[in-house]
Amino acid sequence: MAGFVSTVRVRYAETDQMGVAHHGAYIPWFEEARIEWLRACGISYRDLERQGILMPVVEVAITYKRPLRFDDVAELTTSAEVLGPSRVRFSTEVRLHGEDMLRAEAQVTVAATTPEGRPTRLPASLSATAAQGPKQPG
Amino acid sequence: MAGFVSTVRVRYAETDQMGVAHHGAYIPWFEEARIEWLRACGISYRDLERQGILMPVVEVAITYKRPLRFDDVAELTTSAEVLGPSRVRFSTEVRLHGEDMLRAEAQVTVAATTPEGRPTRLPASLSATAAQGPKQPG
Amino acid sequence: MAGFVSTVRVRYAETDQMGVAHHGAYIPWFEEARIEWLRACGISYRDLERQGILMPVVEVAITYKRPLRFDDVAELTTSAEVLGPSRVRFSTEVRLHGEDMLRAEAQVTVAATTPEGRPTRLPASLSATAAQGPKQPG
Amino acid sequence: MAGFVSTVRVRYAETDQMGVAHHGAYIPWFEEARIEWLRACGISYRDLERQGILMPVVEVAITYKRPLRFDDVAELTTSAEVLGPSRVRFSTEVRLHGEDMLRAEAQVTVAATTPEGRPTRLPASLSATAAQGPKQPG
Repeated sequence: MAGFVSTVRVRYAETDQMGVAHHGAYIPWFEEARIEWLRACGISYRDLERQGILMPVVEVAITYKRPLRFDDVAELTTSAEVLGPSRVRFSTEVRLHGEDMLRAEAQVTVAATTPEGRPTRLPASLSATAAQGPKQPG
Repeated sequence: MAGFVSTVRVRYAETDQMGVAHHGAYIPWFEEARIEWLRACGISYRDLERQGILMPVVEVAITYKRPLRFDDVAELTTSAEVLGPSRVRFSTEVRLHGEDMLRAEAQVTVAATTPEGRPTRLPASLSATAAQGPKQPG
Repeated sequence: MAGFVSTVRVRYAETDQMGVAHHGAYIPWFEEARIEWLRACGISYRDLERQGILMPVVEVAITYKRPLRFDDVAELTTSAEVLGPSRVRFSTEVRLHGEDMLRAEAQVTVAATTPEGRPTRLPASLSATAAQGPKQPG
Repeated sequence: MAGFVSTVRVRYAETDQMGVAHHGAYIPWFEEARIEWLRACGISYRDLERQGILMPVVEVAITYKRPLRFDDVAELTTSAEVLGPSRVRFSTEVRLHGEDMLRAEAQVTVAATTPEGRPTRLPASLSATAAQGPKQPG
């Protein structure tokens, strides 16, 4: 499956003294990629929370292959797999824009919960689209 | 007025590719210093929020004089000045532990508000202690 | 002077438990706005560093007027004023996209230095454009 | 193996609008725990880098079980396993100070490299101590 592509430019604040993007900086990028994936599915995560569906992260696994540097434009290719009625795993591949070589890859599992932290069902539109991925705009 | 001293060690994640602590990293340090200042006054900021008193930042002014580096232990000397019934300004000086030379200094103004964002009175104990500063433990 | 406009979308990771963008999150936005301002001037800050010109921040002053929330698209309007041969002050206004009301404003002063931290001259193209601002693309 | 214990207090800036510590905030904590583990082994990571040995992260796996909140004091129990001449995996368990219940656990694999990114040998003292863990101070 092709996956949904979004981009992010490495911020100066995201670098560390090794001269590369710090490994922790990727976490907000993956989060942003999931939110853009949802938006492309017609789901506003902001509205979801207002409706009482939260999606906390329960697991993160990241492999770093080659570093990214300040001002690099990273291309994130995201897909999703429904693991159960209230659990979905997003996979994201990171490449430098215009390159084939993988820079990093991540799997992030999120649970659908109520504001009190009890499991709840994933939105139907999410489950439906996860099978085939959102349409890439343009 | 002597001010209340707390310390923070520069995290690797807080450095940038200049090889120094990023200027944005100081903001959470000043926040932590205010919270420790409050704790030394007998005020738990966590409890304050539970009681419906929030203290959002309305102004920040920081001067950076000499950089701090990874693993440096910074000493933060914090004092407070009440500006009005719902406004207090914290001043923090940053030094390397054991040095006189100023590395940075900041003034951060916070407002006391309700959860809805309306001004409310500062806790009485805060106003009382701001005049003389909290007792330094030990 | 009109100023150069760039945008940023508030990340989930940038919110805090008050439910708004944390005041520290703005610092990387202002940094990004300066870098985009430079790019619009034809200056790559990445290349500048490679040529041995660093631009560390020496002063930050931010006023927060109204909070921003997760997923908000903030519009940053940035202009620059040369303060001396090696010093420039960037001013940035923050608005919600499509609104007039000011959410925050900042002044950030940066110094041009060598990698060893000695003052050096600002790039000529920067000084030239600061007077009139970069051309807004499209 | 008992593991080396260090602590960290959840910063306000580390919370998100779910009212808990953001999942990305843990990454700098684990990094700090590794650095304290090394220090307890008699290794200054700062000196290591000055000697030309860098330890970039190549893999991260985190499981989040129960959230942490602002002002919580988290207890991090860290151990290490040498995976090869230039690779070591740190395991960290996160508990609330004074509790048995696991809040989160992580495995972070780091590689020893030259500043140019080529594999190099782990410091001998690290390999030696990884087998048995550093002595807990006091």
